[in-house]
Amino acid sequence: MIFDAIQKHLAQAEDWTGRRLLVTAGPTREPIDPVRFITNHSSGKMGYAIAEAARKRGAVVTLISGPTSLDAPAGVEVIPCQRASEMRDRVLERFGECDVLVMTAAVGDFAPADIHKEKIKKSGDQPLLLNLQPTPDILKEVAAHKTHQTVVGFAAESENVVQSALGKLQRKHLDLIVANDISAPGIGFQSDFNQVQLIRGADAIEVLPRLTKREVAGILLDRIRDLMPPARGSA
Amino acid sequence: MIFDAIQKHLAQAEDWTGRRLLVTAGPTREPIDPVRFITNHSSGKMGYAIAEAARKRGAVVTLISGPTSLDAPAGVEVIPCQRASEMRDRVLERFGECDVLVMTAAVGDFAPADIHKEKIKKSGDQPLLLNLQPTPDILKEVAAHKTHQTVVGFAAESENVVQSALGKLQRKHLDLIVANDISAPGIGFQSDFNQVQLIRGADAIEVLPRLTKREVAGILLDRIRDLMPPARGSA
Repeated sequence: MIFDAIQKHLAQAEDWTGRRLLVTAGPTREPIDPVRFITNHSSGKMGYAIAEAARKRGAVVTLISGPTSLDAPAGVEVIPCQRASEMRDRVLERFGECDVLVMTAAVGDFAPADIHKEKIKKSGDQPLLLNLQPTPDILKEVAAHKTHQTVVGFAAESENVVQSALGKLQRKHLDLIVANDISAPGIGFQSDFNQVQLIRGADAIEVLPRLTKREVAGILLDRIRDLMPPARGSA
Repeated sequence: MIFDAIQKHLAQAEDWTGRRLLVTAGPTREPIDPVRFITNHSSGKMGYAIAEAARKRGAVVTLISGPTSLDAPAGVEVIPCQRASEMRDRVLERFGECDVLVMTAAVGDFAPADIHKEKIKKSGDQPLLLNLQPTPDILKEVAAHKTHQTVVGFAAESENVVQSALGKLQRKHLDLIVANDISAPGIGFQSDFNQVQLIRGADAIEVLPRLTKREVAGILLDRIRDLMPPARGSA
């Protein structure tokens, strides 16, 4: 029993060796003017947990991160970025050389069409109309460059969670999508816990219990490992 | 010399005893939907430095703080808030019982007129028009309740710094305004340094050099102490 456990641990400890993992994490920030910006509640914890766990299991990990208050995981290359368009550029630069892309980042869907050079002043009771344009769809652009890569997306939804995630899985040609319900309390954004469903298709949905983000990262890396084609150079 | 220095230190160590200081700090957050919000680059460092320094000099300090990643200074009551309207409510609740209000918070000037209950979805190339309304003007409302209090404002400007600060000083009936030029690199938002002007009127402008925020806090507390009426109960 003990021997089995050790062997299993050692096997797991090396099961990502030779794999190159690209992870995105955190929110993006879209400037309105030099002072103000639009962002979201993502803490980056899920992506950092995946990056750290994969590194420990032998992967070469690059983490493309929006602004967070987290420390860089040991042995992981961290590439910082702010806007969605910057994150797109960094992902496309590195996508060709990775084996797996896991997009945990909460990429802003909309950005101000014009960034004001000076701080916008309040002028009495005057409202301010902000014209927001959709940001680049990173996963859609990635799909166009896909060769051997396994691509995993995240879907944070506040309603019709499974249906929305399934739509995204198919539309963006993902291998797996991780769906979570952001309307549920005590999980998701900012929390150390998450409660997710791993979705590969309408008939392939794995519902996980409420777990720490570290535990979710471990299970997700198990599932991705089983999806990947054999490492190049192996039998 | 040494005796003088010690005496000066002891005198300064107690010069805020018996005074009640109310400080606001950090950014505010205005929700767009359950995921997204508008905020700004304020780190809260200036306000936390003032709260900490005043506490050490004997003041009873209440810190009304937007979301920051800073630790509460020892011995200071911290009241958290998110939206500008919440910060207004907390300030007005506590203003009557304070001797000095220092508003370092970067209060959002605009907030979405409607907060979406569900996450707004991207719909192809469709733009999103966001209707923002001005938020409550906290200093203007405070002025209407002013009795014995000394009120200090901050002005973070990217152009016409002194002129904008003088306008705010007069319009909002402030006793002192601290102006800084956010277009200058290496100071202000997020930085541990600041370079400010202390303005009491067009002919009373004190230009400080680039200093740490802790040093700025010390000088500001010196100047406010000299502006305050004698403590109630003293000769």
